[in-house]
Amino acid sequence: MNYSMIRYILSSVICFVGIFLLLPAATAGIYQEKEGFLYLITGLACMLIGFLGRRRKPKSSVFYSKEGFAAVALSWIILSLIGALPMHLTGEFPSYIDALFETISGFTTTGSSILSDVEKLSRGTAFWRCFTHWIGGMGVLVFIMAVMPLSDSSSMHLMRAESPGPSVGKLVPKVKTTAMILYGIYVVFTVIEIIALLIAGMPLFDSMTLTFGTVGTGGFGLLNSSIASYSTAVQIIITVFMIICSINFTVYYIFLIKRPKEALMCEEMRYYLLIVFGSALLIAFNIRASFASFGKAFQQAIFQVASVISTTGFATADFNLWPEFSRMILVLLMFVGACAGSTGGGFKVSRLIIMVKSVRNEIMSVTHPRSVQKVHMDGRRIPDNVVKTVLCYLAGYVVILIVSVLLISLDNFDMTTNFTAVMATFNNVGPGLNMVGPTGNFGGFSVLSKLVLMFDMLVGRLELYPMLVIFAPGLWRIHPHRHVGKVQ
Amino acid sequence: MNYSMIRYILSSVICFVGIFLLLPAATAGIYQEKEGFLYLITGLACMLIGFLGRRRKPKSSVFYSKEGFAAVALSWIILSLIGALPMHLTGEFPSYIDALFETISGFTTTGSSILSDVEKLSRGTAFWRCFTHWIGGMGVLVFIMAVMPLSDSSSMHLMRAESPGPSVGKLVPKVKTTAMILYGIYVVFTVIEIIALLIAGMPLFDSMTLTFGTVGTGGFGLLNSSIASYSTAVQIIITVFMIICSINFTVYYIFLIKRPKEALMCEEMRYYLLIVFGSALLIAFNIRASFASFGKAFQQAIFQVASVISTTGFATADFNLWPEFSRMILVLLMFVGACAGSTGGGFKVSRLIIMVKSVRNEIMSVTHPRSVQKVHMDGRRIPDNVVKTVLCYLAGYVVILIVSVLLISLDNFDMTTNFTAVMATFNNVGPGLNMVGPTGNFGGFSVLSKLVLMFDMLVGRLELYPMLVIFAPGLWRIHPHRHVGKVQ
Repeated sequence: MNYSMIRYILSSVICFVGIFLLLPAATAGIYQEKEGFLYLITGLACMLIGFLGRRRKPKSSVFYSKEGFAAVALSWIILSLIGALPMHLTGEFPSYIDALFETISGFTTTGSSILSDVEKLSRGTAFWRCFTHWIGGMGVLVFIMAVMPLSDSSSMHLMRAESPGPSVGKLVPKVKTTAMILYGIYVVFTVIEIIALLIAGMPLFDSMTLTFGTVGTGGFGLLNSSIASYSTAVQIIITVFMIICSINFTVYYIFLIKRPKEALMCEEMRYYLLIVFGSALLIAFNIRASFASFGKAFQQAIFQVASVISTTGFATADFNLWPEFSRMILVLLMFVGACAGSTGGGFKVSRLIIMVKSVRNEIMSVTHPRSVQKVHMDGRRIPDNVVKTVLCYLAGYVVILIVSVLLISLDNFDMTTNFTAVMATFNNVGPGLNMVGPTGNFGGFSVLSKLVLMFDMLVGRLELYPMLVIFAPGLWRIHPHRHVGKVQ
Repeated sequence: MNYSMIRYILSSVICFVGIFLLLPAATAGIYQEKEGFLYLITGLACMLIGFLGRRRKPKSSVFYSKEGFAAVALSWIILSLIGALPMHLTGEFPSYIDALFETISGFTTTGSSILSDVEKLSRGTAFWRCFTHWIGGMGVLVFIMAVMPLSDSSSMHLMRAESPGPSVGKLVPKVKTTAMILYGIYVVFTVIEIIALLIAGMPLFDSMTLTFGTVGTGGFGLLNSSIASYSTAVQIIITVFMIICSINFTVYYIFLIKRPKEALMCEEMRYYLLIVFGSALLIAFNIRASFASFGKAFQQAIFQVASVISTTGFATADFNLWPEFSRMILVLLMFVGACAGSTGGGFKVSRLIIMVKSVRNEIMSVTHPRSVQKVHMDGRRIPDNVVKTVLCYLAGYVVILIVSVLLISLDNFDMTTNFTAVMATFNNVGPGLNMVGPTGNFGGFSVLSKLVLMFDMLVGRLELYPMLVIFAPGLWRIHPHRHVGKVQ
């Protein structure tokens, strides 16, 4: 394990968190809130610590995938621990554990809250809470890669560990350029949505914070009613951007380099949109009796479907009160999740496609035992090891889901609350059903349950392996001699 | 597709159902119930039809695995359709669909009932209802193989399709002898339990019917209170036999051929017993406040754990009222299920072991990327294709679970009812929670939901593929020329 390299990366993360913390400090300054000082001091302290940690360059540039996984997992833990500090110091949260829950929920773009009244928050804290979504959406290490010199091999390992999807690839030969392109597209979407919301008549502060929650597919907002009290125009703008940001960003890049046909043929995007519109239609039929027209029912249905499948978690209606069929569809969409390579969470549509095709092949192999069946996507054959990794991912997913629900059930809430609380955090959605429904919150859980759910949010955002690898025996062993001269 | 061979096998199944139906007819005769005639007439009709269908020997003995899967799936469907007929004709069930639900629940050893009062049933019907568990426990085709001359290759394909577990093997070189050994052990356990219950003071009729429900891991009984009103001695006898019959029967065979050390080392059995005793201890701690002593709490806990994990479904207490942690453990045990090669259902412990080991290897491959990790069990390497089949099985399992719960939720019952109703039928357990808890029943569901749950029971008992394969495109196509002379 190359400790000096990990120290260097973690110091960079701390340094950047420090810089990011200046934003809520400035916001608080504008609104003349004294809480701003807490953000300013934490920010400056982080910048100093990060600067000191980065002064000594790493002795060796050896960087294997295990270093990548460990660095990413530790980065996210440190990011959360620091991000929660000023929020806790403002006294706006019952305890540090609660502030940490909120921060992890923010960075992992989950949007689950322990607060019963978010409208009481100071402007600085409200800004920081939403801005964590923006940082976490595309990933803090991808950001660092885009702006900092790092070797291409180590960047690739970091990117593989942080970016979602069954097989993370580069858009262009250089990882740094790939990271810059991704963040470029991300910033463009952010700016467009802010402008669209301003045009729809929303104030700048609200436009910015809601945009962070949308493009990061997070779900934190400013009002206790989430999005319900905003105009239909605002709701439609948010629907569109939730869908846009939960589609694989590679599609936009392929579109940009003028291969629109190829972009539109993307199998994952097509299935994703099919699921979105199919589910919205089913729910609209199911809930139409409660609305003036089918059109209105469909608008509410597609907002909620887009919000849940993109794992954003905004709400325009209390879907906890919808019929069981609609509730069940939403729970299943939590599992499905967004596209790989987007800012959304969940199991990912591409994994689902590979999984379903594998099952179909298994059945076909009974009727045609002599033909060897392979999984194809976008016309290309998926390598067997990727298929196996996807299937193992499902197995690991099920194991973590089971253990989490079991631990949560010690609090003795009802099964739907327990199950959907884990589904909502593990898939980075936000609200679940019953006690943790859109009008409820996670404040009622015990500390143990909160710790379990925090772990689920991180393990879900980083797609299992980084968070699990750091507990693997032998990872932290030092083998200096085996590494010397081996650069991979 | 070799239609004449399938016709021959199905005719044999019909013939044997006819013979089996003479047993409830005789029972009804002893108790002087006029319903006995219905069983007698149906039985004789089946024997006649089966005899006629078997008169012409199949033209070709070509038998591929697809013929095996199709024959097994169709056998179980026909078995159920016929078995429900006399039950419906007695007028003791609201409709044929309900009688069919009860019969499928019986043959698949599920034990879910649509009846609110089982004590009203005639003796003949009560006997038949419980006896279906005994037939389904070890499998009707395994029975036919044991008593009828069938070629070894076709027997092997039938056995693979009907017997539970990730890789079905033969105990001895001849399949027919393997089937005879399995049924031999099964009969011995049946006789021992009947004698044990007689010694405990139970009348013969009750001893026999409860034994059928236990050794077949089914769960139908004679009383509305299931096992709660029987003595502690009876409860303990049933606990022991539920555990015995949910362990891989291969273990007993290895024990019989005097290799006891090898039998005791069986990894699946060890993990299975560990899960049983571990879960029982956790539940006993969780529910101890409601019982006079920890011993009594443990006795109730282990009964319920054994009942659920062996997928029997008997109840001595209304576990629906237990704390959420205990309820959740029981739901998870429904998923885990029994050992492969036993009479129990569920996902199977061996699949779980392979699954967990695969995930562990996936994590290890990050920290030790150069070492190739393979899954081992009982000291032997599990072939990669078996590992892949297990992982695909999980994927298929999840897909069927999701679709089923979604369809059931159209009835608008609560989520716990819907989810556990599917878990209880799909894993062949019997009772679920809430509306379908041990004191409830499945009578309240719509016809659509009942059809979905019937499909789940069959697809669960036959472990997905046989029931799915019959819907595969191209299976029923006739290619006479390709088959001529190819005997596999």
